[in-house]
Amino acid sequence: MTELMNKSDLSGTYDAARAYELDRAHVFHSWSAQAEITPMVVTRAEGSHVWDANGTRYLDFSSQLVFTNLGHQHPRIVAAIQEQAAHLCTIAPAVANGARSEAARLIASHTPGDLDHVFFTNGGADANEHAVRMARLHTGRHKVLTTYRSYHGGTHLAVNMTGDPRRWASDHGSTGTVHFFGPFLYRSAFHATTEAEECQRALEHLEQVVALEGPATVAAIVLEAIPGTAGIMVPPPGYLAGVREICDRHGIVLIADEVMSGFGRAGRWFAVEHGAITPDLITFAKGVNSGYVPLGGVAISDEIYSTFAHRTYPGGLTYSGHPLACAAAVATICTMEDEDVVGRAERLGEDVLGPGLRALAEKHERIGEVRGTGAFWAIELVSDRTTREPLAPYGGSSPEMGAIVKGCQERGMLPFVNYNRIHVVPPLTTTDDEAREGLAILDAALDATA
Amino acid sequence: MTELMNKSDLSGTYDAARAYELDRAHVFHSWSAQAEITPMVVTRAEGSHVWDANGTRYLDFSSQLVFTNLGHQHPRIVAAIQEQAAHLCTIAPAVANGARSEAARLIASHTPGDLDHVFFTNGGADANEHAVRMARLHTGRHKVLTTYRSYHGGTHLAVNMTGDPRRWASDHGSTGTVHFFGPFLYRSAFHATTEAEECQRALEHLEQVVALEGPATVAAIVLEAIPGTAGIMVPPPGYLAGVREICDRHGIVLIADEVMSGFGRAGRWFAVEHGAITPDLITFAKGVNSGYVPLGGVAISDEIYSTFAHRTYPGGLTYSGHPLACAAAVATICTMEDEDVVGRAERLGEDVLGPGLRALAEKHERIGEVRGTGAFWAIELVSDRTTREPLAPYGGSSPEMGAIVKGCQERGMLPFVNYNRIHVVPPLTTTDDEAREGLAILDAALDATA
Repeated sequence: MTELMNKSDLSGTYDAARAYELDRAHVFHSWSAQAEITPMVVTRAEGSHVWDANGTRYLDFSSQLVFTNLGHQHPRIVAAIQEQAAHLCTIAPAVANGARSEAARLIASHTPGDLDHVFFTNGGADANEHAVRMARLHTGRHKVLTTYRSYHGGTHLAVNMTGDPRRWASDHGSTGTVHFFGPFLYRSAFHATTEAEECQRALEHLEQVVALEGPATVAAIVLEAIPGTAGIMVPPPGYLAGVREICDRHGIVLIADEVMSGFGRAGRWFAVEHGAITPDLITFAKGVNSGYVPLGGVAISDEIYSTFAHRTYPGGLTYSGHPLACAAAVATICTMEDEDVVGRAERLGEDVLGPGLRALAEKHERIGEVRGTGAFWAIELVSDRTTREPLAPYGGSSPEMGAIVKGCQERGMLPFVNYNRIHVVPPLTTTDDEAREGLAILDAALDATA
Repeated sequence: MTELMNKSDLSGTYDAARAYELDRAHVFHSWSAQAEITPMVVTRAEGSHVWDANGTRYLDFSSQLVFTNLGHQHPRIVAAIQEQAAHLCTIAPAVANGARSEAARLIASHTPGDLDHVFFTNGGADANEHAVRMARLHTGRHKVLTTYRSYHGGTHLAVNMTGDPRRWASDHGSTGTVHFFGPFLYRSAFHATTEAEECQRALEHLEQVVALEGPATVAAIVLEAIPGTAGIMVPPPGYLAGVREICDRHGIVLIADEVMSGFGRAGRWFAVEHGAITPDLITFAKGVNSGYVPLGGVAISDEIYSTFAHRTYPGGLTYSGHPLACAAAVATICTMEDEDVVGRAERLGEDVLGPGLRALAEKHERIGEVRGTGAFWAIELVSDRTTREPLAPYGGSSPEMGAIVKGCQERGMLPFVNYNRIHVVPPLTTTDDEAREGLAILDAALDATA
């Protein structure tokens, strides 16, 4: 699974040993105890693979943090960045600029319904922050309902919207957020036994929360179209339409967070297409340009746009619509169109990842559930299939999970891990053979740690 | 002042008319009533100049939003972006990477004192949000004191920290922020008549606010080292040292927001050097890489780093330490070192901008005050020098200010405007002749509208 290469072939711009030394001396890392980590030095990446400082090659089954949707170093995106850099790296958000305009047009051409205007941000967190501000000012209401088992970003409001343990340390005062339960049959909050029952009961629950919070106080319901890091719980048929109906009935803005699920990840341009609904706002980042340059944004319905047609939108940021980021988005979206990358992701799920993961579940007792769509899959690892006891506690890790992850890495594959789950989220451009290779590594790692 | 060029020479990647049409159809702009704006189409930029769709050239006296510190299309930064793009556009924040490590080393080599670790963000707003989180967890306290007449960013917490009208529309609940008055002799909150008196009274005021809020409840005091968009009020000698002493006495974290003032803008690497203090955290963005790729961050003292050495820092973001952004920072900082850009900014202020603006003030009654340092200057425009009545109301505009701005633009110069002030904030690489040309345009625009 690994190929050893001469280290000097990989040195690129920076020496790997020095990169490690300087990292430990000067870089403060996300979500980490700084003195307790030993970061891998990545010296090279291409397509579905990355290489470490020893020249070891890894199949990237994580798309890093689920954002390199077109894989690493896609030549069209690299060329677009280089050309835009030669032409115009940056310009203030107030002006009109070709790359910014074209990126907005392309995004709007793929968003559902009348979500025809785009406010650009730097990433997903600020996209969600601005979407909530738009909803609050549009409705004149303050409260925001979000789901448990969700992630919406690391800034203050975004992490307060978040429904996973990453919120806890920053959870002083709600800033208007209220959490409710979304549908998740495998660990049902509603004692449901079928997807249809889970769907119906989850909608009744949301209806009750809205009624008891006071419909006239609720500005927005925010949900990930398919919850991502929290577990890739594909909503049952009818759920999103039910939420849309509740929002319509009470004048609540529906915000779909598609930061992870959008731009092909779920085998559709946007995952809300699976539920055949149009939200009022869609937030995006990651896949919009495969993360090659920081970019996020909010796609805005005509109705909400109209609220700010003759009233100043009181929000902004220095790098809104950054030309370099937008040029990367233009190249990414054009490539996705030209090469039917979205269809490719759908078939990858239907032909390889879905069947392959279900076959692993038949073989390995510790796989409690397989769920997903497109290039967006999770396996739920349990110590007991009957009790569904997770192989690591909520918000924590365990020696068992650590061993499985290490087993994957030693065999040349980088998995995405969250608590007791392994997510299979490779680039959408991963070949069938690469996907099968990754699944075989996962199989072997599960065998070796059984 | 203007030169007409053949439009086809400027077309670059995108057609300008189409860029405008698509902008109006699909781009949602920061801080704007969307249907009431007519964005200039920028088709080209180089050094100290930008060009619009008609081929009109403008001297950029704004550095866009005060971020293109090395001007437009600096060849070393462009080349660094292109080379990094060819090598490795992006990688997850958990790994070590040469560009990230080297950028952190270079930044730490210029921050004062022991601020030797860098947490990278996408811009200034999330830098401030994360700095506050670090301070809260480090102290175990919640409250954050910030100044009126300040700007800290557009996300929820950052805009709540902000002390200018951009906060008002999002001001539901304080999220723990309390505003106090900083020193500003020209519009003193303390009835002071000298800089020394203003300084002493501002420190007494802050001491009182801390005492009355409860010192043991205050996590951080956050201030712009020199308030930027709010008016470029250079703190009087002794003020920053006084704030440092108050923080030390009460165990409060001192956060210096150097998003605008840092990286040479104020004629020093960081503006806190003017006050000879070391804050506990410095936030930065903009000048760190001249805005060529979105990047911000927090420079962290050893003491606060130690808090998160064996305790997880509960915050992060997908693009933390983005290689492309970091490569642009490496090229920017190396260029600043090699070409003594910081010294250049200092001399630009001492030799040209300061004397030139003071000469304008002698000539034009409407200039109530000139203040600044380096490439960081403001003129305060008033209808009456005695009453100091602003030429536009706080938070608003006026026909008089609009005419002056238009007068500058018509003569081929882009000024930075905020309410009744014009800020003179050109790239640090602006030549003496270009600076004099810009001042002459400002002079002519003031003459024409007198």
